[in-house]
Formats: sequence, structure tokens, C-alpha cells
Amino acid sequence: MNEHLTACLDEYVPVINAYLKELRFADQIGARLAAPLDDAMHYSVDAGGKRLRPVLTIMAYRLLADDWQRVLPVAAAYELIHTYSLIHDDLPAMDDDDLRRGRPTNHRVYGEAMAILAGDALLTEAFHLLAEEVDAEPEIVVKLVSGLALAAGRDGMVGGQAIDILSQGRNDQANIDQQSELLETLHRRKTGAMITGSLLAGVDLAQGDPFLRARLTEFGSIIGLAFQVADDILDEVGEEASLGKDIGSDRELGKLTFVSLFGLEEARLSF
Amino acid sequence: MNEHLTACLDEYVPVINAYLKELRFADQIGARLAAPLDDAMHYSVDAGGKRLRPVLTIMAYRLLADDWQRVLPVAAAYELIHTYSLIHDDLPAMDDDDLRRGRPTNHRVYGEAMAILAGDALLTEAFHLLAEEVDAEPEIVVKLVSGLALAAGRDGMVGGQAIDILSQGRNDQANIDQQSELLETLHRRKTGAMITGSLLAGVDLAQGDPFLRARLTEFGSIIGLAFQVADDILDEVGEEASLGKDIGSDRELGKLTFVSLFGLEEARLSF
Repeated sequence: MNEHLTACLDEYVPVINAYLKELRFADQIGARLAAPLDDAMHYSVDAGGKRLRPVLTIMAYRLLADDWQRVLPVAAAYELIHTYSLIHDDLPAMDDDDLRRGRPTNHRVYGEAMAILAGDALLTEAFHLLAEEVDAEPEIVVKLVSGLALAAGRDGMVGGQAIDILSQGRNDQANIDQQSELLETLHRRKTGAMITGSLLAGVDLAQGDPFLRARLTEFGSIIGLAFQVADDILDEVGEEASLGKDIGSDRELGKLTFVSLFGLEEARLSF
Repeated sequence: MNEHLTACLDEYVPVINAYLKELRFADQIGARLAAPLDDAMHYSVDAGGKRLRPVLTIMAYRLLADDWQRVLPVAAAYELIHTYSLIHDDLPAMDDDDLRRGRPTNHRVYGEAMAILAGDALLTEAFHLLAEEVDAEPEIVVKLVSGLALAAGRDGMVGGQAIDILSQGRNDQANIDQQSELLETLHRRKTGAMITGSLLAGVDLAQGDPFLRARLTEFGSIIGLAFQVADDILDEVGEEASLGKDIGSDRELGKLTFVSLFGLEEARLSF
């Protein structure tokens, strides 16, 4: 990895982790009663991971301004959304995974009901963070809320996940052009929208101009696709121990992936 | 029912229903591909119901201003959150209900995976509506986002649902004071927070003062409890056909309810 990038990650990731660990999902009544919910939320939030989206938000903000600690609530909001999506994706009704980031998945520890609720609560908490914790003019906060909802919702991540589920078992080599278009749309939404969104959030907080927004949108969509090709390859050839998650589940579920569609070699070459 | 109230409902509910039916969960890319997700979202949103929360938002707004159609995106946001919570609550891992508003539950029609995603998308869409569709100063929009997140999240509805799940099978008549406190906290969050929130949203949009906010908070918490006692009684003695949902599931799941704790007669008297 590029030395400058490594230095950045070494600087940002511990600060992001500390900020997330300190989050006290608002705490007004009956804190003790709902303790297992809080535990379930923090179990997944504190599980580590690359923190790719928060790092991108910080890096985008730093294109325009220096005081990057100001970005933390925004960066954290993107990470909370990403975390909830992993909890729900791992559920038995979805990918039915047992392992995530080297530990049992959320529902394996807290049960399915609590995992669904922990996901719902993290999704909601992301918007609470934006509305309550971001130090910016209200019109910027509204823009951030709108951007996060667009990236995370039906037009973004959730829509992509729906296409993913709908495509299972329908891998059709005969119709490769149509499948290839489907696969790109799937990932543009499932992964790309949140990656682009996290970049735009940094720029919006720093009040960047439309030109920069347009460039970063392009940039985000390329990172998103590259990231997904790598993920598909690793699901086929990676090692469970080093990745910390179940391997081969794409193939088991008959999912449409870059590997299933183009073969392993072609996918490697495109990366 | 009071005649004035009936007239209000006759005026508001068709307008609310029409607004919800017209919602085109943003529609930029791959609309056709994600069509089953949209169908699943609208299946539950358009299923009718009392529209209690939107009506309360409109009524609270009308305490201060006349142009109540302005409230519709805010009222709809509360209804989307309420709808998503019903979809997730009905899931096999939660209450495992087959019937809701006289029709098969969402997961019975679209499958569990799509029902989880439809819920996630509706939750996200509620915040998108606030950020994009409300005609108000940005500082008011931020207040609305914060209020909705607080009412819907860990400190409100989701937290209450978690306590509900955790209390299942732990009905303990010996410790009635503690159980009674638990039951009140449960409902203050599970139902009360969204009812109070929907009232406050109307007042906030009309820029009401803190005095009115405080009074409506009190009012909302009483409506919420009354509503829940009625719901608990109906789950015990209601008829499936007229209620349009499964009956007796509270008892089956060993849930803590006003009926299980105080008995049917006492619950009736308190209402």
C-alpha cells in the first residue's frame, strides 16, 4: 500500500474507532432495560473493519480544509449505516452468514430479533448523529441528511441489496450483456452509492463546489466497482481465517458476481 | 366517536392516503430491476390503517396554523416509520404474524429477505422525505429530523420493541410493581414515543413555543398508554376478522401486557 495512504489510515482509523466506541446511543429512559440492544449495537460497531467510508469522508473533507476532526459525526453516520447493513445482510433470511470480521455474526450472539432491532436502531441513530452532532449551518446538515438517505436507501444500498437477492440463482451465461449490465447496476447501488455518498459528505461539509462533487462522484463509482470485484474474488479464493468471514457463500447462493459471470481469471484481470 | 373528530378524519385520511400512494421512492437508476422492492414497500404503505400518527401531526399543526397540507411530507414520514416497524415486527424472528390489516403480512407475500429490505428502505425514505420535501427553514427541518430519529430509534420505538422482546416469557406476577414499571417504560417507548413525536413534529413545523411542546408531550404519553391498553385487550378478546390481524399472539409468546399483568377486568377498568 502507498506510504502516504498508510500514514493517513494510521492517523484516522484509531480516532474513528475511539469516536464510535464512545457513542452512547442516546440515553434518557430505561437505559438498563434496553441494555442488550445497546450491547448488540456496539458489538458490531466496535468490531473493527477497514472503516473505508469514514476514511473517505475525512479524505474528501481534507481536499478543502484542515480541521478534519469536525468530520467525525458525519464519518460515523456513514459507518453506522454500513454496520447495520452488514447485520441485516448476515441474517438467516438474507446471506445466512455465521462469521463476520472474525467473530460470530450479530444474530449468532444476540438472536435474530435483537439483530434486526440493532440494525434498525443503528440506521436511525445515523440520522440522529447528523441532526444533533454536526457543527455546521442547518442547510448543510439538511444536505447531509438528504445525501445519506439517498446513498443508503431504495435508490442506493438497499435497492442494490434487493437486486442482489432477486438475482440469486438466475445466473445466465447465455445473456451475458444483460447480466453484465445488471451486475454493474447492482454494485453501483449496493456498494458504490455509499462510497460515493461518503466522499460527497466530506465535500458538502467543507462546502465544496459542484465541479468537485461531480469529479468525486466519478471517482467513488470507480472505487466502488473495483472494491466489489476484489470482494467477489476473495469470496471465491480467500481464506476464512484471514478474511474473518464465511467464504464461498456467493457460489452456494447462486449469486450473480464478477467471478460467476466472467470467471476467476477475467475478474482478476479486470482488477 | 366524537362528531368533530370524525369530520376531521374524513377530511384528513383520504388526503394522507393519496399522498402516500403517490410516493415514488426516488427513482434514478435501475427502477425496473428493483421493482419487487417498490412493490413490497407500497404493499404495506397502501394497506390503510388508522393513519393515527399523520392525523395527530396535522391536528397539532392546526393548533397554530391553517395551511395543513404543508404538513403532509412530515406526516407521511411518521407513517413510513410506523409502517416499517409493523413489517419488521411481523417477521418470523419477531412476532411471526401472518395477518396484518386484513391481508397477509409483508414477508408472507414477498419473502423474509424482501420484507427486511422494504422495512429498511421505508425507514431511510422517511428521512429523505424530511430533507427533500418539507417546505420550511433548514433549522426547522433539522429539528424534525432529530425529533423523528429520537422517537423512532433506540430511545423510542426500537428500544421499546427490544424491551418487549426481552420481556417475553418473563411474566412474573410475584413482582408486580417492578413489572408494572417495566410495562410502562416499554409502552412509553414502543408506542408513546412515536405518538408524542408526531404531535411535536406538527408543532415544530408551525414553530410552536416550548410551553405547547411540553403540554403535547404530556398529552402524547397519555394517548400512547391508552392506545396500548386497548391494543392489549383486543389481542385477548378481539375478533381476527374485524381487526384484520392475528389474535392471541401476545399470550402465545408469553408477552408482558396490561392483560397478562393485571387481568382482563382490571385492564378494561383502567381504560
